[in-house]
Amino acid sequence: MFETAELGRTISKKAFKQTATVLREELLEVQDELHEGGEFQVILLFAGVDGAGKGETVSLLNEWMDARWLITRAYDEPTDNERERPEFWKYWRDLPPRGRIGMFLSAWYSQPVLDHVYGNTDEAVFLRRLDRIVRFERALARDGALILKFWMHLSRQAQEQRLKSLELDPLTKARVTKRDWEHWKIYDRFIDTAEQVIQRTNRGIAPWTVVEGADAHYRGITVTTILRDALRNRLEEARANGVAKAKPAKPKKKTNGGGKAVAKKSKSNGYDVAKSITVLSALDTEQWLDKSEYNEQLVELQARLHRLHLRAKTERVSSILLFEGPDAAGKGGAIRRVTEALDARNYQVHGIAAPTDEEKAQHYLWRFWRHLSPGGRITIFDRSWYGRVLVERIEGFASEDEWRRSYAEINDFEEQLIEHGIVLMKYWVHITKDEQLARFKLREKTPYKRWKLTDEDWRNRDKWDDYEQAVNDMVQFTSTSTAPWTLIEGNDKRFARVKVVKTFSDRLAAALGEGEI
Amino acid sequence: MFETAELGRTISKKAFKQTATVLREELLEVQDELHEGGEFQVILLFAGVDGAGKGETVSLLNEWMDARWLITRAYDEPTDNERERPEFWKYWRDLPPRGRIGMFLSAWYSQPVLDHVYGNTDEAVFLRRLDRIVRFERALARDGALILKFWMHLSRQAQEQRLKSLELDPLTKARVTKRDWEHWKIYDRFIDTAEQVIQRTNRGIAPWTVVEGADAHYRGITVTTILRDALRNRLEEARANGVAKAKPAKPKKKTNGGGKAVAKKSKSNGYDVAKSITVLSALDTEQWLDKSEYNEQLVELQARLHRLHLRAKTERVSSILLFEGPDAAGKGGAIRRVTEALDARNYQVHGIAAPTDEEKAQHYLWRFWRHLSPGGRITIFDRSWYGRVLVERIEGFASEDEWRRSYAEINDFEEQLIEHGIVLMKYWVHITKDEQLARFKLREKTPYKRWKLTDEDWRNRDKWDDYEQAVNDMVQFTSTSTAPWTLIEGNDKRFARVKVVKTFSDRLAAALGEGEI
Repeated sequence: MFETAELGRTISKKAFKQTATVLREELLEVQDELHEGGEFQVILLFAGVDGAGKGETVSLLNEWMDARWLITRAYDEPTDNERERPEFWKYWRDLPPRGRIGMFLSAWYSQPVLDHVYGNTDEAVFLRRLDRIVRFERALARDGALILKFWMHLSRQAQEQRLKSLELDPLTKARVTKRDWEHWKIYDRFIDTAEQVIQRTNRGIAPWTVVEGADAHYRGITVTTILRDALRNRLEEARANGVAKAKPAKPKKKTNGGGKAVAKKSKSNGYDVAKSITVLSALDTEQWLDKSEYNEQLVELQARLHRLHLRAKTERVSSILLFEGPDAAGKGGAIRRVTEALDARNYQVHGIAAPTDEEKAQHYLWRFWRHLSPGGRITIFDRSWYGRVLVERIEGFASEDEWRRSYAEINDFEEQLIEHGIVLMKYWVHITKDEQLARFKLREKTPYKRWKLTDEDWRNRDKWDDYEQAVNDMVQFTSTSTAPWTLIEGNDKRFARVKVVKTFSDRLAAALGEGEI
Repeated sequence: MFETAELGRTISKKAFKQTATVLREELLEVQDELHEGGEFQVILLFAGVDGAGKGETVSLLNEWMDARWLITRAYDEPTDNERERPEFWKYWRDLPPRGRIGMFLSAWYSQPVLDHVYGNTDEAVFLRRLDRIVRFERALARDGALILKFWMHLSRQAQEQRLKSLELDPLTKARVTKRDWEHWKIYDRFIDTAEQVIQRTNRGIAPWTVVEGADAHYRGITVTTILRDALRNRLEEARANGVAKAKPAKPKKKTNGGGKAVAKKSKSNGYDVAKSITVLSALDTEQWLDKSEYNEQLVELQARLHRLHLRAKTERVSSILLFEGPDAAGKGGAIRRVTEALDARNYQVHGIAAPTDEEKAQHYLWRFWRHLSPGGRITIFDRSWYGRVLVERIEGFASEDEWRRSYAEINDFEEQLIEHGIVLMKYWVHITKDEQLARFKLREKTPYKRWKLTDEDWRNRDKWDDYEQAVNDMVQFTSTSTAPWTLIEGNDKRFARVKVVKTFSDRLAAALGEGEI
């Protein structure tokens, strides 16, 4: 879940300034329309890792927007006055009225997270509290509030570096407290809890965005861009529904050169947040294996996998492997290296193409549920339920509402597989755009491979950037600690195949109580 | 929650037959349209008390509808085949495709309820399971499925009678198992669990209906009417959205005399389920007290309340009392009998009228949250947040979507009050329609009371039946074991006042650890 927020994304000072000039004006404009319309309120919630810029981002928003219509709230230890009422009394009290923006620091998330991290509450209390949060946010959202939640993230290492550098500077030394270091020590537990909290409280009507918090410019631009776009869309919807008071269209003010975005999707600012570095561009695709290394390792790994799979069969431990990746990434070859090691009676490969009529008459997950094998089997999906958030998203076969809600549905499906003791491997086999071109050309030239290359492959290739963004989102929302994605650097087929067989064997061994080799 | 399903509602054999003739045809008609359109599936779930007619209702539906497009599923102990997959595999497997109706007996509710009743699972597991159910149903509903859930209810006593009478009849004796009697013995725990389950899984997209199960005719007509109406509405929506395939309007077949309902709201059958007996019509409004009894009891009760309230003040136990009821029911008089016993510095009465501008700019519950007092105080609401599901519902100030979702929001609000240790009393002070007329006429004649009677009172009176239905629904959805409604028989003012002071004192005493008097 947090892989996408540890990519080292930065924005230069120059790009930041350039972008900020336009963005500030746009923010003021939407804020003004929000205030004049008075039709709904905006609730921004900031939570996350200490030092990831929660407070700084709120300060930035206060600086950039009209502070008269902003409400900022942070909560200390409860006062007597607060303690004598139910916990949420203070949050209700502080809600912004329609037309205004309320910014809340940690707020209703603070106590549930900390109590869980420190083990002060049992699981049932934790779940009830998250449920209460969901219901609170739902009540407000259904009443019209626009709710955006930002999880400001820092890697363990980045948090350590930050604390150390603060301590080195005499001016900032005092800001580092003992509590900061205590929090850092329980970083892993904190992140584990955070993942649960985000998963359970991430709803379409009150979505979380995980923001990489290390670079102040990057996080500032990211949060404000998301706010601007969400607010614009909502105001537009309100206008379309005739809900907002009719307001004469203002002549647009000119901004640096008049290059002003009007259309919903166009980006008016210099830096395009969406199209920046992704989990894929961060892969080291140069890794490779020479032939003799490959042969040697593969034989050994396959022998191990064979042994493990026999044991799994006896102990009725099932596995499900799914493979996604660009055309010509080598999914089929990798799958064969796995199945070579298996007893043919004991596995099944499902190539997932367009759904049948019978499947179309059901929920999109139905076709995958029906393929679940009894205990001890290995089921391999060549393409999978992730088609919903990849090809269906990009080709428009699923509406935005449909593919967005499917992240949660997929998480839920996989949670049930894992709770049942199934070993689930999710492979994204990746190749670079250049490598794909080389492989396509080779296929064109090789008669017995030519059938593998279709016009559709070329069309998909044109949408490379869209796919890359979709994969990034997919990893953000569905790579969980219990069902992580394994990204396979696939430019070198040998490297990719060995990594697939090895990672599967390791997870299977762990499930059977054996160690890694 | 179950008060509304213990009213002894019945339908005579004659009325049943008459209604059934029309209803069956209508059901076939909507089923046909559903099947031809093939746009969405219908999922009917039946759960509830043993013997309340789950199976019989499913049989009735199978008899009345076209069984070719019906799927019925009940679940025994899991087979090996089922045990080797995640629990929900079997439910996914059995889902009806679009265009068909699936009827599920207990199904995904069975194990969570029984395990909780028997204490086999801890609270966190129970909550997680309910959450899983919500997500399962949500995924299906968002995919288009129409989901209706029926909780078939029998009172403890009715269940006992039923088991006994089955045992007396040699033909049915064998149907009563040891397990049935075991279930009966834990009736209270079962009902407690049921209430939690219904509250947590009652969503707009998969609503529960609590059905009084004692009379086979009544429950049969109730369930089928709800199914017909929901299916009709959904088909109509689909047609309006142009989702359903264009289908030439069929000439309507003639039914007994051609009296065929076309409009959505009109009832085509002889028996009107919605307008039947309510919790209010079941009240014994003849109860009364003579003046000397009244004076004696009131003085004693007020003295007790005074003492209790001083103790509550010291121990910082707050109380909230809310009063709802028809115009001229005597709410004000009852409130005064409470406040007479209290220290004026320690209570506050809020008369709830139209919201202020500041309140209108917030969620409708905001104005009540802000009135929460610090510890030890007594807050009295003359009319309350229930206006949302009473006057706002009936006058159309709140949309159906708004007032329907507010049941859950209100439950959530009150749960927070109670968890915080606040004593919450919810009074419905009731008078009969005749008694109201008598009081209105008296007011007209009494100069110093004339101001109390407005044109609006007369208008409200015209909507008496709508209010009665709204109160019945309100009690069904918001009278919980932790926050029950207290219904006050108000035709005799003395009786009503004494009952209010007594019930409040008793609950306050219990909260302070004292017994009843």
